[in-house]
Amino acid sequence: MWPPREHVKGSQTWETLDTPPELHFLKLKRSQLKVRFCTNESQKSRGDLVGLLRHMGFDISEGEVTAPAPATCLILKERGLRPHLLIHDGIRSEFAQIDTSNPNCVVIADAGESFSYQNMNKAFQVLMELDNPVLISLGKGRYYKETSGLMLDVGAYTKALEYACGIKAEVVGKPAPGYFQSALQEMGVESHEAIMIGDDIVGDVGGAQRCGMRALQVRTGKFRPSDEHHPEVKADGYVDNLAEAVDLLLQYAHQ
Amino acid sequence: MWPPREHVKGSQTWETLDTPPELHFLKLKRSQLKVRFCTNESQKSRGDLVGLLRHMGFDISEGEVTAPAPATCLILKERGLRPHLLIHDGIRSEFAQIDTSNPNCVVIADAGESFSYQNMNKAFQVLMELDNPVLISLGKGRYYKETSGLMLDVGAYTKALEYACGIKAEVVGKPAPGYFQSALQEMGVESHEAIMIGDDIVGDVGGAQRCGMRALQVRTGKFRPSDEHHPEVKADGYVDNLAEAVDLLLQYAHQ
Repeated sequence: MWPPREHVKGSQTWETLDTPPELHFLKLKRSQLKVRFCTNESQKSRGDLVGLLRHMGFDISEGEVTAPAPATCLILKERGLRPHLLIHDGIRSEFAQIDTSNPNCVVIADAGESFSYQNMNKAFQVLMELDNPVLISLGKGRYYKETSGLMLDVGAYTKALEYACGIKAEVVGKPAPGYFQSALQEMGVESHEAIMIGDDIVGDVGGAQRCGMRALQVRTGKFRPSDEHHPEVKADGYVDNLAEAVDLLLQYAHQ
Repeated sequence: MWPPREHVKGSQTWETLDTPPELHFLKLKRSQLKVRFCTNESQKSRGDLVGLLRHMGFDISEGEVTAPAPATCLILKERGLRPHLLIHDGIRSEFAQIDTSNPNCVVIADAGESFSYQNMNKAFQVLMELDNPVLISLGKGRYYKETSGLMLDVGAYTKALEYACGIKAEVVGKPAPGYFQSALQEMGVESHEAIMIGDDIVGDVGGAQRCGMRALQVRTGKFRPSDEHHPEVKADGYVDNLAEAVDLLLQYAHQ
């Protein structure tokens, strides 16, 4: 598993260009190991994300990606929930088959510019009219980096609604254990057989470990040197880039 | 002490019109008791608030009102803080004498429509650039009622910034004990000599009690019958309206 989100968004970079990650990814796919992308991307549909990754040279299809919006649609259908959507227009198509009439829950994602006072109030009012308010949050990121600077992520706005309504949101996305579990089910493997590779010490590494997986942190993207001394999460290993992670995995897989 | 905010805002009403509160307030002022308005109003300047109250028939001057914006200005000056202001235009005049160049803190108030994604990101970016980020919140209300419906209050947006930055805001306003303390100092009385009259079981009653005061809850404004069985706060008494509170106070004062 590998998290593409931060690497296709804003100013984040994969790693040094002399080790193109798409080739290492291909090497991994051609091995006997199963590979799955596990992302918290909630501004782009899975189709758009895969299109972008393919354009970057990654040999990947929609069926190999676990993303919060499709996972949320499954939950909504299972529980007969009709959402009021506070989301970015970029993922509205993911909810095309979902009944949004007479809403009985709120789904919040990284809505970007759509996090207006008016839209926040509307979502709040929907929740306050429900006897048992249900708030589903696509991830709970604090912030991310765009070329124009640091931007508030969905987690901040979820906290605002939680506080105002006196409720707790259900998170669909990393680091929620159920989200990793759904990715494992789609791969058909047990947690102790899987390893997560990610750049986020809490969201990727900590979340996967709480789900019973092992996890490597890559020293690229949002990695900070202080992550290696994080007070709560310790990765099972640290690698400089995806190339090193792939070499390590293939080496162990062949033993 | 008496909280005017909810009563001059939106659809809230004082109480039944056959007991005009301004006359009971006058009765109180003409007694030997000291009286002070203690408000969380952060969309109007103290001058505008007093103007509105006078228009409603209240015999009151700016010097008799404790409000979060002037209290915040004192704190900013004392600590050499230069704020980035995320506030409503209605209280901008309160900060006219404050140096806002090269900000080293953020002051957040009920900004209403100004709680845009852009403005929230700007406040967030200012905080993230500081070594020791200081966030001062004028009150921490969850929401209030306007004619157009329930609206998110400053507390919700403060929670968003707290979560994104991993910090805790300093609250200036009810129920912060320091805020009641400043009102008591301005009156020149000790907490055990004072009584709070308010409609908010947590913000008015609970806050005043934690400061060593006694507190009456009035069954008007945002009062709900369930407040009388609140799990954490029990008022020293409940009264139907300001008239009953004033009668009670004057009766005890004469004993």
